[in-house]
Amino acid sequence: MEPKQLPQDRDIVTAALIVIGDEILSGRTLDKNIGFIARYLTAIGIRLREVRVVGDIENEIITAINALRGSHDYVFTTGGIGPTHDDITADCVAKAFGVPIDIDARAVALMRERYDEKDMTQSRLRMARIPRGAELIENSVSKAPGFMIENVIVMAGVPKIMQVMLDNVAPRLKTGRKLHTRTVRVERPESEMAPGLAELQQQFLDVQMGSYPYFEKGRLGTNLVLRASDEGLLDAALKALWEMLKAQGVADRAQSVE
Amino acid sequence: MEPKQLPQDRDIVTAALIVIGDEILSGRTLDKNIGFIARYLTAIGIRLREVRVVGDIENEIITAINALRGSHDYVFTTGGIGPTHDDITADCVAKAFGVPIDIDARAVALMRERYDEKDMTQSRLRMARIPRGAELIENSVSKAPGFMIENVIVMAGVPKIMQVMLDNVAPRLKTGRKLHTRTVRVERPESEMAPGLAELQQQFLDVQMGSYPYFEKGRLGTNLVLRASDEGLLDAALKALWEMLKAQGVADRAQSVE
Repeated sequence: MEPKQLPQDRDIVTAALIVIGDEILSGRTLDKNIGFIARYLTAIGIRLREVRVVGDIENEIITAINALRGSHDYVFTTGGIGPTHDDITADCVAKAFGVPIDIDARAVALMRERYDEKDMTQSRLRMARIPRGAELIENSVSKAPGFMIENVIVMAGVPKIMQVMLDNVAPRLKTGRKLHTRTVRVERPESEMAPGLAELQQQFLDVQMGSYPYFEKGRLGTNLVLRASDEGLLDAALKALWEMLKAQGVADRAQSVE
Repeated sequence: MEPKQLPQDRDIVTAALIVIGDEILSGRTLDKNIGFIARYLTAIGIRLREVRVVGDIENEIITAINALRGSHDYVFTTGGIGPTHDDITADCVAKAFGVPIDIDARAVALMRERYDEKDMTQSRLRMARIPRGAELIENSVSKAPGFMIENVIVMAGVPKIMQVMLDNVAPRLKTGRKLHTRTVRVERPESEMAPGLAELQQQFLDVQMGSYPYFEKGRLGTNLVLRASDEGLLDAALKALWEMLKAQGVADRAQSVE
């Protein structure tokens, strides 16, 4: 087996995501951030290459941050930046970078837009603790900010809050060549198209070709997905795919989607 | 910050999950397996400690398998065992274990229950390739089996097929003490309960206490979650939590859920 290789491309920007929270690992909370962030980053030209879900455990969070921040352009985290004792992400990030963490006057100022002095309790102030050297990421929903330190972007776990933070930080990020996609949905099991697709992959080495089975109404079907940075090349591969589907007699069960 | 520690317990059985597929990382396919597997394992007494999502890239899959199989009782994988050129999971598992992989007569026999000799194409036979030494995991939906080699359990990515494989393999797994859960939903921001909860955590060191904010209808609320193996201890902690909520004057906005 040859591993799939992306074409060499200095304009490719990559990211990893660390989802932090016991509640995801126990199944109590269904993660809604991985899919959202994956689509978002793909759309702006950042390629998500790995996701890790870890519990609220200090050494596991620090290990994940340090394992990923050297090998990707960006590392995003979600979760663990609230006011309670189990919110340890900011402290872990500070430890991973070896910098101090303390209540940040800029973060307090943002929170004072929402809260009176008397409502700035110790617990709320905990959400203003930011590792030294970080830039803040504002959040219009609940005011307590996320932050970005070097290439690590720390966001809330609540999806609506994470989403406004992502919108806020995105313009500061470098982005690369977008990966474009063409999908053909075929109401046939993928094994029927497998030899043709493998042959097509050999003809178009710079187009990633994926085959994703689905199971609906008791039948197996397949989404054939082509991905490439170069749209001209992608459309040439798509045309060749349709020729292959016609040759195999399954074109009448196929349709382009998305 | 002290990292949260589970009580020492030799009866705890742990697992990691590797979700394999470019389509999850690009956001084209929304993962539905992480949440299902997390809930399932929790219910049978296996604690999911880490999840990794990796692309269809050989060295990344092998690295993840070898990183996790030594540190957890079980490693589950989903995805990449279909008939197409991008399905490389079985080969990667064989390489991770340093064993040969070939068409397996038992797997062929299972598939022949569904397919005639003439329908056992090269592509379908690809799904019968199993690393030497693995036990098969049957699948009534599409017949092509998953497998278990030592402590690594390899399943399909299509949710319905993964689910029947999980049902099939579960009785073979050792399970440990279940982690029981009590949840109280409070229609107040978590910062209001944070000091009381932190104090309660100090009183009940063997009960994990988590605070999970939610955002609904424009308001922040909180799920307070207590987890422990010992249900007597858990209910004592739950009682103390309700006392705390009464003392803070938020009991009328709280309800036990699940």
